[in-house]
Amino acid sequence: MVKKDLFLGVDTGGTGVKFVVTDQDGSVTTSGEIPTDPTSIEVSMQRLGAAVAGTLGGEPGFPRLAGLGMACAGIVNSATGRLGRSPNLPGWQDRNLPQVIGTVFDGIPVALANDVNGALYGEFRQGAGRHCRNLVMVALGTGVGGGVIIDGKLVVGTHFGAGEIGHMNLDPAGPPCTCGGRGCLEAWAGSTGLLRRAREAAGQGKADDELVRLVARRGELLNTLDLADLASSGNAVATEIFAEAGRRLGQAIGNIVNLLDPDRVIVGGGVAQAGDLILKPCREIVPGLVLAQEAKNIPVVSAELGPLAAAVGAACLAREMGIPG
Amino acid sequence: MVKKDLFLGVDTGGTGVKFVVTDQDGSVTTSGEIPTDPTSIEVSMQRLGAAVAGTLGGEPGFPRLAGLGMACAGIVNSATGRLGRSPNLPGWQDRNLPQVIGTVFDGIPVALANDVNGALYGEFRQGAGRHCRNLVMVALGTGVGGGVIIDGKLVVGTHFGAGEIGHMNLDPAGPPCTCGGRGCLEAWAGSTGLLRRAREAAGQGKADDELVRLVARRGELLNTLDLADLASSGNAVATEIFAEAGRRLGQAIGNIVNLLDPDRVIVGGGVAQAGDLILKPCREIVPGLVLAQEAKNIPVVSAELGPLAAAVGAACLAREMGIPG
Repeated sequence: MVKKDLFLGVDTGGTGVKFVVTDQDGSVTTSGEIPTDPTSIEVSMQRLGAAVAGTLGGEPGFPRLAGLGMACAGIVNSATGRLGRSPNLPGWQDRNLPQVIGTVFDGIPVALANDVNGALYGEFRQGAGRHCRNLVMVALGTGVGGGVIIDGKLVVGTHFGAGEIGHMNLDPAGPPCTCGGRGCLEAWAGSTGLLRRAREAAGQGKADDELVRLVARRGELLNTLDLADLASSGNAVATEIFAEAGRRLGQAIGNIVNLLDPDRVIVGGGVAQAGDLILKPCREIVPGLVLAQEAKNIPVVSAELGPLAAAVGAACLAREMGIPG
Repeated sequence: MVKKDLFLGVDTGGTGVKFVVTDQDGSVTTSGEIPTDPTSIEVSMQRLGAAVAGTLGGEPGFPRLAGLGMACAGIVNSATGRLGRSPNLPGWQDRNLPQVIGTVFDGIPVALANDVNGALYGEFRQGAGRHCRNLVMVALGTGVGGGVIIDGKLVVGTHFGAGEIGHMNLDPAGPPCTCGGRGCLEAWAGSTGLLRRAREAAGQGKADDELVRLVARRGELLNTLDLADLASSGNAVATEIFAEAGRRLGQAIGNIVNLLDPDRVIVGGGVAQAGDLILKPCREIVPGLVLAQEAKNIPVVSAELGPLAAAVGAACLAREMGIPG
């Protein structure tokens, strides 16, 4: 009998399904990616099965897989196995994920999480949150997501709606957010908000020539790395846009620390690649906002695992279900 | 041998030590209060011992007490048993509470919590949070405190600093807070903040004659019940001060629901006696601030246990330590 000693971790986004295979220590032995079919979970799973079979060598039935974890964009009901609202995966909504996964990965136990909780769990087990018991992650992407671990366990919430840190309201008179509200963290610190502020500055004569030229040259392709490059070259307006995002991130983190007093806070996501442009102003503001003396110097650290974090976390969740052989 | 079938719950504040004796179901069989000696924990414990002995009937050594829970104002390190920063109990700071308690209540196991967590736990077991697993409490008093229960357990935080909901920053340009910051929930919804806003309105000609007369007549004795009476009689300025507190409370609750998605939120404390003056505007604003569809209609309910909540909660914590007989 083949030993069941590997775990498959899967991270399903709107465009790609990333996967990792880990050993029993959580170390990645191999990884890959297939294109998502957002309209069909069945087609996506067949593609995934073929890719994983190729990776593991051709034995039928994945005999070495002891478990499969899937992190998925959207509201994941890990009790019923159903995927709720998931704008980027319309064909996956309201489907029973373990059931469909089981048509390809027959008999392999399945663990589920949403994508940010997957990334948080990966950082918790294998990355910037190792040795922590209480941990919070803020993921700065197009939007802003988040996750919470208390006493070593993911906090999913009563309706699987926990972790929506991006919609923490930091000023009801703040800038508009994609959710329809105003003054959410996401309106300052998500890339949509950051880029809107850059375009506004360029359009309203607040900016210098460099920013105006950048916005004109890149047009719809403008991204936060362009803006970070400009800020890093010394541009004051671009620098201030990131600094404002950092201060608002700091306000949100201060609020979270006052509420939960975690070991540390991890900042990840594509926008976090701006590094100290955001993190330095953030770290400067946090201690003054935290009440408990002992919690003022909470470490605010960068994520370590990069784009595979959620797949790694999903594999760890699968491992920790206590799966029979 | 006498059956150990009773639990003592104690709630120590700066002026009084409230206590309850409960049976094994958590029902209060008797209650009392002694004056706190804020400079001496020993004196306070001797008074408490005498009062409890009188209540239980004079058998020496409290033979029927199976456990003792103490809720205490200040940062309670329930791992070491020490009371940290506690401005209202200077003689209790840095003392090992179980040790001193043991000099009077010899051999009786001790459970500890801070005062708001005690109240939250009381509501969780015997009050407005019965049958919940995930629960948040906001206590509107002179200041604003709070507590969090996730999956049936109190969240105390890594440095025992969790639950400082009153210092959630809701607008960095908001009114000054006693913590030295600006725009904390407490600055709007604690009685200090509410009364300051009433006095400001009276002093700056924003108020009508009724509020000006009330502030002049009550002077330093002005309290939130005076203000609630005026609002209930139809006074628009007083009504708006409570409504603003309620909207800011709603903003804070929206943020908490987005982060933790609890079963319900309990609002307690003396200021909460203003009832719908605060809770109605609060409840109106919450659904629009919560992202997850299933969590929008989170119940925001009044506390049920009143001033004995923390003592009841402390008794329940003692009961649930799994004490040997």
